[in-house]
Amino acid sequence: MTSSLQKKIETVAKRAHDAAPLVAKLTTKAKNLILIETADALVARHAEIVRANQKDLKEAQKKKLAPALIDRLTLNAQRIGEISKGLREVAALPDPLGEIVKSWTRPNGLHVQRVRIPLGVIGIIYESRPNVTIDAAGLCLKSGNAVVLRGGSEAIHSNLVLGKILRDVLKKNGVDPNVVQIIDTPDRKAMGFLVRQSRYIDVMIPRGGESLMKWMADHSKIPVIKHDKGVCHVFVDESANPGMAEKIIINAKVQRPGVCNALETLLVHERIARTFLPSMAEKLQEAGVEIRGDDPVRKIVPGAKKAAEKDWGMEYLDLILAVKIVPDLESAIRHIQKYGSLHTETIVTEDKSHAAEFLNRLDSSVVLWNASTRFNDGGQLGLGAEIGISTTKLHAFGPMGLEELTTMKFVVTGTGQIRE
Amino acid sequence: MTSSLQKKIETVAKRAHDAAPLVAKLTTKAKNLILIETADALVARHAEIVRANQKDLKEAQKKKLAPALIDRLTLNAQRIGEISKGLREVAALPDPLGEIVKSWTRPNGLHVQRVRIPLGVIGIIYESRPNVTIDAAGLCLKSGNAVVLRGGSEAIHSNLVLGKILRDVLKKNGVDPNVVQIIDTPDRKAMGFLVRQSRYIDVMIPRGGESLMKWMADHSKIPVIKHDKGVCHVFVDESANPGMAEKIIINAKVQRPGVCNALETLLVHERIARTFLPSMAEKLQEAGVEIRGDDPVRKIVPGAKKAAEKDWGMEYLDLILAVKIVPDLESAIRHIQKYGSLHTETIVTEDKSHAAEFLNRLDSSVVLWNASTRFNDGGQLGLGAEIGISTTKLHAFGPMGLEELTTMKFVVTGTGQIRE
Repeated sequence: MTSSLQKKIETVAKRAHDAAPLVAKLTTKAKNLILIETADALVARHAEIVRANQKDLKEAQKKKLAPALIDRLTLNAQRIGEISKGLREVAALPDPLGEIVKSWTRPNGLHVQRVRIPLGVIGIIYESRPNVTIDAAGLCLKSGNAVVLRGGSEAIHSNLVLGKILRDVLKKNGVDPNVVQIIDTPDRKAMGFLVRQSRYIDVMIPRGGESLMKWMADHSKIPVIKHDKGVCHVFVDESANPGMAEKIIINAKVQRPGVCNALETLLVHERIARTFLPSMAEKLQEAGVEIRGDDPVRKIVPGAKKAAEKDWGMEYLDLILAVKIVPDLESAIRHIQKYGSLHTETIVTEDKSHAAEFLNRLDSSVVLWNASTRFNDGGQLGLGAEIGISTTKLHAFGPMGLEELTTMKFVVTGTGQIRE
Repeated sequence: MTSSLQKKIETVAKRAHDAAPLVAKLTTKAKNLILIETADALVARHAEIVRANQKDLKEAQKKKLAPALIDRLTLNAQRIGEISKGLREVAALPDPLGEIVKSWTRPNGLHVQRVRIPLGVIGIIYESRPNVTIDAAGLCLKSGNAVVLRGGSEAIHSNLVLGKILRDVLKKNGVDPNVVQIIDTPDRKAMGFLVRQSRYIDVMIPRGGESLMKWMADHSKIPVIKHDKGVCHVFVDESANPGMAEKIIINAKVQRPGVCNALETLLVHERIARTFLPSMAEKLQEAGVEIRGDDPVRKIVPGAKKAAEKDWGMEYLDLILAVKIVPDLESAIRHIQKYGSLHTETIVTEDKSHAAEFLNRLDSSVVLWNASTRFNDGGQLGLGAEIGISTTKLHAFGPMGLEELTTMKFVVTGTGQIRE
């Protein structure tokens, strides 16, 4: 038996699918115009957005959501301005479509090109923050994809107004508004139906916590690009510049501890531990960081708690840091291979060959030499805006910008060649 | 409760996972040596292979498998020679790993590189043909991946001997033989356990018919790169060179009708239909092809059967061809968008702007101008050997060579940069 909700979700997905060839072939100029007019409309209609957001906030307060969640849910003139600015930045980025990534000629005269095309229809499931509605839709449109958005139920009123504004601009520009679909029901069953639309949706991108990731892995019949946890490491090698290491570690741990590219485990070479670690730990503790160390760490760091086995590989997302002293580079690499999540790893060293070994041996999505883990970010690495940070090796590994929302087709030109 | 089979499959996957970092960092020279020594060993030990294959063939005859299946299952000195030659060709291909695909410097001085790395562990499920065991393992090894192979139960003895030969060469070269795992049970339940090892396997590549594809889509918890059906089209435009069109159509339909890049639907512009189609159809019919046409086709092609709605979009894999007359290029494009499978489409035309429109509007994995659909093939397009033809847009779309068995990490070099 097909429920009416199931039919509804199928219709939403099919509409996006049918509209996808249109958005795929929009000119760059037309797409940029839509992005810029949407940026304008968001500012012009900010009162309408704030009104809808107030409804969500009222509900959230009734449900006694955590203050951090309520903060992420809140839209005000300033935040609407930031979303609007984000769209203008995407408009300014080069169009990834049509790029001839490679081309060559075969001995039989066939000319082969690999040309960038959109993925088709992208489904995005996200939580709380309503800005994702516009950020994600903007990136999908610019990369020529249709998009089906399913935000958190707590942001439903905000998301619907934001979607309406975007669809109004699409209509005004003569573009089928079905290229952007907002799932308008807070019913969680909708998600279950959505991830079964493999006929109409080419890829699902979940953005959220561990339970969403697990749910997606268990239920999705559509290929998923996960945005999973970051157990990021910094290794301070024996030859590290201690001042540089300190700056990097403080930045990686303290600047924004709740994000996936924040530092979670610090590894220190035993030859530098005694001189480096006590003052480093003091600075971290001054910044409010709790240190959880192995026994050698606890001998030289006053106030360090004892790290349990489960502390290695833990994503705290908080002002807590696991610290371990290792005998050499090889042990650091093996520790990261064993406990890491393939997200982000930094080596601080003045030894070029040690850096090369670390950067070569560790196949995490971003590996850094003498720089903060916080640089695993599309904007910071120069991809322009990002849709998130993929922890799936397939298709896109690390920050995903516009290019990562595309695929390539082969375009072959001949003069009547047939296969022998 | 964990069954012993489940434990066994988990162990197989974990062993491949643990061995993956080793094969990822083998030198090109070491990998090529393994490939060449395996090629030698296959020829030297061909009697042993043929003996095992005889066991499979005897079983197959007992089970009265179709002659075509038995033919695909058969290994003899000549076929073993071809498998061996294939390995030498893979050895001669450039190593995809370590390639710096792009690099740039950020305003803050961070130097960013995108570097090719292996996917990790690749799981391959395939049917009948035992040559896939060596072909696939060779490509996975050369691209630095560990591999778990699960061939058809009817080829189990052949596959186990082939796997043993390869693992013997690995051991002899001091490489952990766990980088190549052959699932040694014909029990179909093993497949169900295999596709749940998402902790250890990075991607599943199924090669086989529609029922395997459907089963994978329904059961795999690991990302899947499908090798699905090809409903390939040729459109003969009004300005087509008729002789060239004939040659291409005969080649695409008749040369090897049972493969995914064979022609299935022919679309002909109405302005050229009357002069082109009758003699074209005659030549096809002489070659044993059954024509199924719409009414206008049947008026000008004697002996054409009536095409039903389900003939559009049908993958016959046989000497049958659906033929339709269309009023213009636009109708041809829309027909392909509606009924195609995004596999391979050819336009035959002398009109450059029509060709450009066709190649641009249709986002199938390979689109061709004046060339046979049969060129959608890794070897033919110059990728070297291929693991198959992906019909998944994600990660790899079209023929998959060595490069498509890799992903990219970001390597970032700094001088102490932190995020502001």
